[in-house]
Amino acid sequence: MISITLIGSGNVATHLYNAIKNCETIVINEWFSRNLTQISKYSNEVSITSDLQNLKESDVYIIAVSDDAIEDVSKQLPFKDRLVVHTSGSVRLYDIDMKHKRGVFYPLQSFSKDVDLEFSEVPICVEALRKEDFNTLKTIGEALGCIIHKVNTNQRKALHLAAVFANNFTNQIYRIAHEICESQSAEFDILKPLIKETARKIDDVSPYKAQTGPAKRGDKKTIKKQLKMLDNEMQKDVYELLTKSIKQTHGQR
Amino acid sequence: MISITLIGSGNVATHLYNAIKNCETIVINEWFSRNLTQISKYSNEVSITSDLQNLKESDVYIIAVSDDAIEDVSKQLPFKDRLVVHTSGSVRLYDIDMKHKRGVFYPLQSFSKDVDLEFSEVPICVEALRKEDFNTLKTIGEALGCIIHKVNTNQRKALHLAAVFANNFTNQIYRIAHEICESQSAEFDILKPLIKETARKIDDVSPYKAQTGPAKRGDKKTIKKQLKMLDNEMQKDVYELLTKSIKQTHGQR
Repeated sequence: MISITLIGSGNVATHLYNAIKNCETIVINEWFSRNLTQISKYSNEVSITSDLQNLKESDVYIIAVSDDAIEDVSKQLPFKDRLVVHTSGSVRLYDIDMKHKRGVFYPLQSFSKDVDLEFSEVPICVEALRKEDFNTLKTIGEALGCIIHKVNTNQRKALHLAAVFANNFTNQIYRIAHEICESQSAEFDILKPLIKETARKIDDVSPYKAQTGPAKRGDKKTIKKQLKMLDNEMQKDVYELLTKSIKQTHGQR
Repeated sequence: MISITLIGSGNVATHLYNAIKNCETIVINEWFSRNLTQISKYSNEVSITSDLQNLKESDVYIIAVSDDAIEDVSKQLPFKDRLVVHTSGSVRLYDIDMKHKRGVFYPLQSFSKDVDLEFSEVPICVEALRKEDFNTLKTIGEALGCIIHKVNTNQRKALHLAAVFANNFTNQIYRIAHEICESQSAEFDILKPLIKETARKIDDVSPYKAQTGPAKRGDKKTIKKQLKMLDNEMQKDVYELLTKSIKQTHGQR
């Protein structure tokens, strides 16, 4: 049984807590939040605390707080030589205070407080300095049913940046599609099968091979007609830039 | 039994053919292609022809050719007062020659020749001038197991434009994410669960509500760090523009 102290009460911490509490081989020993009211509703299930100076002893301390606070929290922990990991995609492993055994346990997924998620489908990117620490983190991830990926810091940062494109930017593209539908009282819902098929298709073919449409074909007439339909400067800019990007990728002028 | 003449041999025509041939209440009476070799492999299953002047009589003629050719093909059809529809998202219903009963049967999905697709999950946007023609097209769509949406021309054009965002532009964003992963030898596959969850999440919440990340939070430090990591001008431009677009949508400066 691996015992864990969870530090933080945001989306990642909450999803992690809910996933771990259903596990038989790992246990949340204690849950820390600076603001106890954030987690007080879990006090019947788990030991909660807002006192960083008197944390219980656990096998692993998972710091799931905002990026800017990780270094500071790790310094404040009143012990050394224990395994302390953060869950961030972009913070260096070395930002954890060197008095600890250090690691990273980065679940690559977009967590929303109100949206349920099958945690076993979340890939976990793991980094550690020592082999036995890596194995401990791997065991935790596997107990959650997740696939574990050993990555270095540069790979993790690249994945995190790519995730901003694949998640935030894609979602903004959906948002613009939504606006365009609404401008003509068309139902955005009609697009949902297309959106899902677009995401599904990359299981079969690369995004490069999956591309279709006017920009890929170099169909200037359709591009011109569609640009005319957009009445919003930002939408026009996005249309033009992504059309240019597709043309560049596929060798159209 | 509704009989159909299918005109064209591209992706839409081929997917339509394969969907209809499994239907019990509609039948492909004849399949036309200017270039017979494109469809000759189906000659054991269906009557094929390259002679537009001697087409058999059918209840509906579906013109699934490139947008630019629709008007011309409809003029060349050597009969009148029969139901003739096209499958395009952006061509006007009135571009079909007025000697015909006219309609549109627009399957809103991205069809690739090599990627199988469950046709029943494709929404069909239907337009027709006469109620009985609309009903015929509705019957065909429902026989394929599809959900039928009655739309007007402006709604159809908006949906088609929104589909360019939701499909082509989203796919290009995936492509850039792929490039970023490759630049650090990180596995693009690790992003696939995130990509699917991003598409799935809009069933639960609007793209507006689903948004997360540095641009939404106005997290200038992360944005600056990530821009520095991009070594390609086009990637930087896309990052900057979509960040700006998200900030505009969510009222960040």
